[in-house]
Amino acid sequence: MIKRQKYGDEIAKAEILIEALPYIKKFSGATVVIKYGGNAMIDCQIKKMVMQDIVLLKYVGLNPVIVHGGGPDINKMLESLNIESKFVNGLRVTDEKTMEVVEMVLTGKTNKEIVSMLNEIGGKAIGISGKDGKLLVAEKDTANGDIGYVGKIEEVNIDVIKMMLDKGFIPVIAPCAVGKDGKTYNVNADTAAGKIAEALKAEKFILLTDVEGILSDVNDKSSVISRIDLDAAKELMTTGKITGGMIPKLKCCIQAVENGVKRAHIIDGRLTHSLLLEIFTDEGIGTMIGKECFDDDNL
Amino acid sequence: MIKRQKYGDEIAKAEILIEALPYIKKFSGATVVIKYGGNAMIDCQIKKMVMQDIVLLKYVGLNPVIVHGGGPDINKMLESLNIESKFVNGLRVTDEKTMEVVEMVLTGKTNKEIVSMLNEIGGKAIGISGKDGKLLVAEKDTANGDIGYVGKIEEVNIDVIKMMLDKGFIPVIAPCAVGKDGKTYNVNADTAAGKIAEALKAEKFILLTDVEGILSDVNDKSSVISRIDLDAAKELMTTGKITGGMIPKLKCCIQAVENGVKRAHIIDGRLTHSLLLEIFTDEGIGTMIGKECFDDDNL
Amino acid sequence: MIKRQKYGDEIAKAEILIEALPYIKKFSGATVVIKYGGNAMIDCQIKKMVMQDIVLLKYVGLNPVIVHGGGPDINKMLESLNIESKFVNGLRVTDEKTMEVVEMVLTGKTNKEIVSMLNEIGGKAIGISGKDGKLLVAEKDTANGDIGYVGKIEEVNIDVIKMMLDKGFIPVIAPCAVGKDGKTYNVNADTAAGKIAEALKAEKFILLTDVEGILSDVNDKSSVISRIDLDAAKELMTTGKITGGMIPKLKCCIQAVENGVKRAHIIDGRLTHSLLLEIFTDEGIGTMIGKECFDDDNL
Amino acid sequence: MIKRQKYGDEIAKAEILIEALPYIKKFSGATVVIKYGGNAMIDCQIKKMVMQDIVLLKYVGLNPVIVHGGGPDINKMLESLNIESKFVNGLRVTDEKTMEVVEMVLTGKTNKEIVSMLNEIGGKAIGISGKDGKLLVAEKDTANGDIGYVGKIEEVNIDVIKMMLDKGFIPVIAPCAVGKDGKTYNVNADTAAGKIAEALKAEKFILLTDVEGILSDVNDKSSVISRIDLDAAKELMTTGKITGGMIPKLKCCIQAVENGVKRAHIIDGRLTHSLLLEIFTDEGIGTMIGKECFDDDNL
Amino acid sequence: MIKRQKYGDEIAKAEILIEALPYIKKFSGATVVIKYGGNAMIDCQIKKMVMQDIVLLKYVGLNPVIVHGGGPDINKMLESLNIESKFVNGLRVTDEKTMEVVEMVLTGKTNKEIVSMLNEIGGKAIGISGKDGKLLVAEKDTANGDIGYVGKIEEVNIDVIKMMLDKGFIPVIAPCAVGKDGKTYNVNADTAAGKIAEALKAEKFILLTDVEGILSDVNDKSSVISRIDLDAAKELMTTGKITGGMIPKLKCCIQAVENGVKRAHIIDGRLTHSLLLEIFTDEGIGTMIGKECFDDDNL
Amino acid sequence: MIKRQKYGDEIAKAEILIEALPYIKKFSGATVVIKYGGNAMIDCQIKKMVMQDIVLLKYVGLNPVIVHGGGPDINKMLESLNIESKFVNGLRVTDEKTMEVVEMVLTGKTNKEIVSMLNEIGGKAIGISGKDGKLLVAEKDTANGDIGYVGKIEEVNIDVIKMMLDKGFIPVIAPCAVGKDGKTYNVNADTAAGKIAEALKAEKFILLTDVEGILSDVNDKSSVISRIDLDAAKELMTTGKITGGMIPKLKCCIQAVENGVKRAHIIDGRLTHSLLLEIFTDEGIGTMIGKECFDDDNL
Repeated sequence: MIKRQKYGDEIAKAEILIEALPYIKKFSGATVVIKYGGNAMIDCQIKKMVMQDIVLLKYVGLNPVIVHGGGPDINKMLESLNIESKFVNGLRVTDEKTMEVVEMVLTGKTNKEIVSMLNEIGGKAIGISGKDGKLLVAEKDTANGDIGYVGKIEEVNIDVIKMMLDKGFIPVIAPCAVGKDGKTYNVNADTAAGKIAEALKAEKFILLTDVEGILSDVNDKSSVISRIDLDAAKELMTTGKITGGMIPKLKCCIQAVENGVKRAHIIDGRLTHSLLLEIFTDEGIGTMIGKECFDDDNL
Repeated sequence: MIKRQKYGDEIAKAEILIEALPYIKKFSGATVVIKYGGNAMIDCQIKKMVMQDIVLLKYVGLNPVIVHGGGPDINKMLESLNIESKFVNGLRVTDEKTMEVVEMVLTGKTNKEIVSMLNEIGGKAIGISGKDGKLLVAEKDTANGDIGYVGKIEEVNIDVIKMMLDKGFIPVIAPCAVGKDGKTYNVNADTAAGKIAEALKAEKFILLTDVEGILSDVNDKSSVISRIDLDAAKELMTTGKITGGMIPKLKCCIQAVENGVKRAHIIDGRLTHSLLLEIFTDEGIGTMIGKECFDDDNL
Repeated sequence: MIKRQKYGDEIAKAEILIEALPYIKKFSGATVVIKYGGNAMIDCQIKKMVMQDIVLLKYVGLNPVIVHGGGPDINKMLESLNIESKFVNGLRVTDEKTMEVVEMVLTGKTNKEIVSMLNEIGGKAIGISGKDGKLLVAEKDTANGDIGYVGKIEEVNIDVIKMMLDKGFIPVIAPCAVGKDGKTYNVNADTAAGKIAEALKAEKFILLTDVEGILSDVNDKSSVISRIDLDAAKELMTTGKITGGMIPKLKCCIQAVENGVKRAHIIDGRLTHSLLLEIFTDEGIGTMIGKECFDDDNL
Repeated sequence: MIKRQKYGDEIAKAEILIEALPYIKKFSGATVVIKYGGNAMIDCQIKKMVMQDIVLLKYVGLNPVIVHGGGPDINKMLESLNIESKFVNGLRVTDEKTMEVVEMVLTGKTNKEIVSMLNEIGGKAIGISGKDGKLLVAEKDTANGDIGYVGKIEEVNIDVIKMMLDKGFIPVIAPCAVGKDGKTYNVNADTAAGKIAEALKAEKFILLTDVEGILSDVNDKSSVISRIDLDAAKELMTTGKITGGMIPKLKCCIQAVENGVKRAHIIDGRLTHSLLLEIFTDEGIGTMIGKECFDDDNL
Repeated sequence: MIKRQKYGDEIAKAEILIEALPYIKKFSGATVVIKYGGNAMIDCQIKKMVMQDIVLLKYVGLNPVIVHGGGPDINKMLESLNIESKFVNGLRVTDEKTMEVVEMVLTGKTNKEIVSMLNEIGGKAIGISGKDGKLLVAEKDTANGDIGYVGKIEEVNIDVIKMMLDKGFIPVIAPCAVGKDGKTYNVNADTAAGKIAEALKAEKFILLTDVEGILSDVNDKSSVISRIDLDAAKELMTTGKITGGMIPKLKCCIQAVENGVKRAHIIDGRLTHSLLLEIFTDEGIGTMIGKECFDDDNL
Repeated sequence: MIKRQKYGDEIAKAEILIEALPYIKKFSGATVVIKYGGNAMIDCQIKKMVMQDIVLLKYVGLNPVIVHGGGPDINKMLESLNIESKFVNGLRVTDEKTMEVVEMVLTGKTNKEIVSMLNEIGGKAIGISGKDGKLLVAEKDTANGDIGYVGKIEEVNIDVIKMMLDKGFIPVIAPCAVGKDGKTYNVNADTAAGKIAEALKAEKFILLTDVEGILSDVNDKSSVISRIDLDAAKELMTTGKITGGMIPKLKCCIQAVENGVKRAHIIDGRLTHSLLLEIFTDEGIGTMIGKECFDDDNL
């Protein structure tokens, strides 16, 4: 076997492709629902990298489905339009005017931007909202009183997504839902992504966040729990170790796994190629939640 | 044959359904591209009626495809955001900031509103823009100098639309295109609809407008030309009888018919059930342009 | 919204089409087995109207399947051929010679006449008998002693019908069956239609009769029972309120609904557009039998 | 290799099956249109044998399509009904009353009898007439003046037949056609079979007749021409050697071969297993007409 | 009905084809797994005859699948290569070198020879081994101690076979398996054939052997048991009446029938056309094992 | 964007995957016929690497088809069997005995070894020879006189290969052909691979050899011609610069490109990951022949 010096670098690269082979084989044909949000939507470089990762996943045989949040665009637009934001228990009251802006920005700006970026690097993406084909049907969420057009997802009609995956497209979904009353409702993007993953019986549900994963010691960022099974995850919820924004995220993951998603992942979207690293390395880089977890089951 | 008095009204209605049968048979399976714009997008009652007409067409076996304009929403939003509009030869200069608003309103507001209305009355609609699945690929239109992100359609990729029609959905399309440079371009909705009709080899291309049709005497609204063939239509363009906004509309129709669309129609969207009347009556209500026109060919 | 006087009538018609929309949506794709018999087969005008109704049903997305009786043609032919008819308990004794004439008239005259009429107004009909593709397999019916070639249906092989519906044809079926002994048997058209509806798991089984429907008071033709559930229908059979020819018809409906047909209808074939009225109006015009009936379930 | 005496007969039979193998291979999947008429329709034993031959052809992979004549049934029925037959140039004048009887007997008696027999020995047959699915569309044939409802075939719509062959059925076709005027027309069975063979681009078109084949010497029944090419066949037409009923039959064959049928055969239906012999032996038993004929091309 | 003397022989042959019709109908579409081995693989004339029988089965609508043994070729090659054979309990110890020769001869000589013969007489055969597409996955068989690369089948992946049957090919399979350790294992051809028949839910599993069938009296070759049900067959195993090589063969049949194969047959491959005789005659020629056996169930 | 030190290596690897993306996109769905031979078949390490490369190609969306030579196994076996080799003009005379060994080794040893290796690392491979499904039909090659069973390919029937590619298998093909006389013929592996590539209209035909590529100066191994168009390649054949074994290889490539293969490649199989390097890098590592070659057309 010759390793001609001239091709040293190229050979090294080829060997890395070969290293990825077992992972590619393992997830060939698998559906992966990715919640895209947080800083990964803001930093230009990260944005591009995430898009490349997604297109690569598509080309090596996985079926990525993207659900995105709104990022800072919504606030900026509300400000520009001098629409004041009221809050109840830290939750924004979404009146009709606000809802209109939220939908417009989510589906008319953020969604199309993601579609553009995916298409430009060779993906075939189509952007829709939860209202298209009645993908997401909601009811008013009154858990926190009447805070306006905030919805709780009641039905998920995945025909639209399946049709797109069958034809090789990457679906990009804005988390607006149609209410049973015909109105538009804002739904939480994490929850929407989880529900869609459940309905698709996805292999993976990945939450791109701004944290390293679930920490066993909140004060030690190196204490990321790499794998955790359902029972342990539920227990964790009761211990007080999980705090703040991580609570709903973990809850969302637990629910997805309970309802048929094989693995849920909370990973750090700010980290270079976090998507590929989580899927294509043994240990992964964030926290993986599964029904039962064994050390050797990633491969 | 008994016509029991009790059911008099119902029987009369049934007879009207039977009357429509020859038209339903004739257009069974036909693709109809409808440019939806003008007052038909503003008046609440007309809006609802047009939506009902479209859903009915779908259920009796036709394949409607909707391409919509932006209506007054865009101007309102530009105003709200204090973005000034500059004009060159009566054409709006579309700088980056304007383009962003145009796309956001078209795809995030107008488009989703149409989708909602169609879904609520039983259609299965999906809203996309010309950027999704690279449906519309454009180049900068420099016919009027550099007026910014105004595009000339260079490619139409109808896979996305065909996939939707195959699965029984009604495609609703916002006229934004992706540029060969990866930027977003605004394209004329009439032209976009025409080009899509051509690519689909549609049976009909219908322009919903705010006028009665093409008039043989511009000063006499009752002088609507009911049918006109391609040669006569081209000649009309040179006679000076066609003026103002009708010129590009007729041009658009001529081009569509020359490129494989069977019939192009200019009809008055303000008129109650104009869509059904044009398709389901002998004479129609506006102007029909075909390669060759015979008195008896509508049925 | 303009209602130009000139188009007043057309607009009114269009509105009626729109009114039918919810019914069209509701029954889109549904299989409807229609027993066509009685006066509706004799009166020329009614014949044509029924045919139009059937073709309309086909074009607006339903799947009609026609099972017809023989009407007066059989008796006329038997007379012309000087074949005497013997009766036992009011039932015709069907000897070999009679059977031959019955089959010949049913499949060679009545059946082809219906096919012709449907095809002429734009349907694509194919006429077969229960012998073709062994659609109906019977055994000698000895419930009334040996009255010759009168059969009791033992098997229904719906491949032939499914193949036709898949390709857009309207099946027209003459109620002759092949015996397990290879002979031809005459079977009751109502029963045949009911059995076929069961085998197809049809949405609707409609008996076109010469009466208004089931009456709660036999002497009051305005006392038509509009809706009745299975339990009530069975009870009715025991009360003595149902008499004469209505008994086997109601029995046939009860059996069909018990075996998976969603709704059975007994309607007055003599009434103009009775088929459309029953399917496309809220209240219907005859009697509808369902497993459970609610006032609002028709739509 | 043991040939145990005990199985002597069975082994001999197996060897005959093996002998048929090259023919079975050769015609595997081929469509064969068979005109069934003459004495082969009358003699009970021959009838049964022809049916067995047809079912065997089906099971060993060929696609038989049967077009039948009316045989003596029509005359018998006309007599029974005291309908007098008028003749012009030896052709029966088919008035409306006669046409009704012809259609009734052909489609309601003869056709169903054939279907029954095929089904009983294991075929899956469906009987239709040329009116079903508008298989045969005709115009009044005025070549011999106005002799009533005698039609000339103008269109053949083979969708119905193709659908049946695709699903494994044997189509049995009665030669009635629908006129462009909506009336029923009687068409010649030989011509109908030939036209259907052309439209199906059949491998073989076989005319079962009451003669040995085409004779080179009309007075010598042993002078059957085994094979003849198109040019020779046409020449034969002009020589006067062909007489009487053979003229239209040969004409029919010539036309079929000219329009895409590979081989046309005129064989003696009275001869035991004539169908199998013609298809499964080298020399055949009747006359075969092909575009070009070589001695060795049967296999 | 004419039986012209001239065609006497041909007619007799045609009648034999017709006689086979009921059997052809009965097994139309059925999958038949044939273990081909013993003298039927050695005698040139028998070889050819078996191949003809298989191709005939294919053409008349059955789906034969061939699993072959190695015959004397393996021993001959081992001798030529001076590889000594050691035996333990009468079983050959298969070391690596021996395994290599076994595989090479089975898949590279015997298999391709069968493929060639089938193709030459008109079959479309493809030869594979149990390693291709991981058709047969084995583990080391240690029932007789460590006798080397002798495998016990653990998995059967019939995708490869189904793909071939779907496309009209005849699969020819050499009994080598891939081990879970990646090595090649020799597996018993009878067992392999039985397991494949089970996985395919075959209609028939036929063992071509060098004996007449199962004898009720081992000393009387005319005492072949024609039919036996599962219970009786199991009992037979315990009576001592079955001896020698017949024991594993019967065991193999019992297991196949218990696991879903409809009929297993042990027949004498040396007998002329034994395959056709067993399938196409009432009594058959060997022993048939079924879940329950009735005298009249062969047809 | 965070590049956490901990994941430094993994991130670097992910970036290499992303680098490969444009190539993966470019060749997604493309058929690549690979002639596998020379030292790449002998060195254990290289073998494994080539297999990994092939499986990776499959998983990232290409369709590899392998045609292999025999390597030294054939000579070794001939020696072991004391079969003497005679040569005419440096070509081995292939008598019947030799042919038998060649086929046995090629299809029973080399072929199955490759299948095993591909399957073990996750490919789904099926090994066949040119005789299976009559993939390769040959005639005796008499260009060098009668040197026995050496064949010239006359027909390529790719049904077998297409069926396998459709179902996700990797076809592995041994270069034996069936003669029109039914005998087995040895065919040149390079030529077989080229002919198969032509018949498949392959995107790429890659010859794995033991040389660096085509050299512009035979004495300077660094003078590899990277790209060459058809005209230049043909001219090269006439200049005398190409010598020895390279002549038939280049001829083979020229013919393939002339007959519809997009690119032919001669690469050094001894070089680590030469397959991946040639496909997934801009410059490639060997010589690429195309109809017309531009510097920028690889991507």
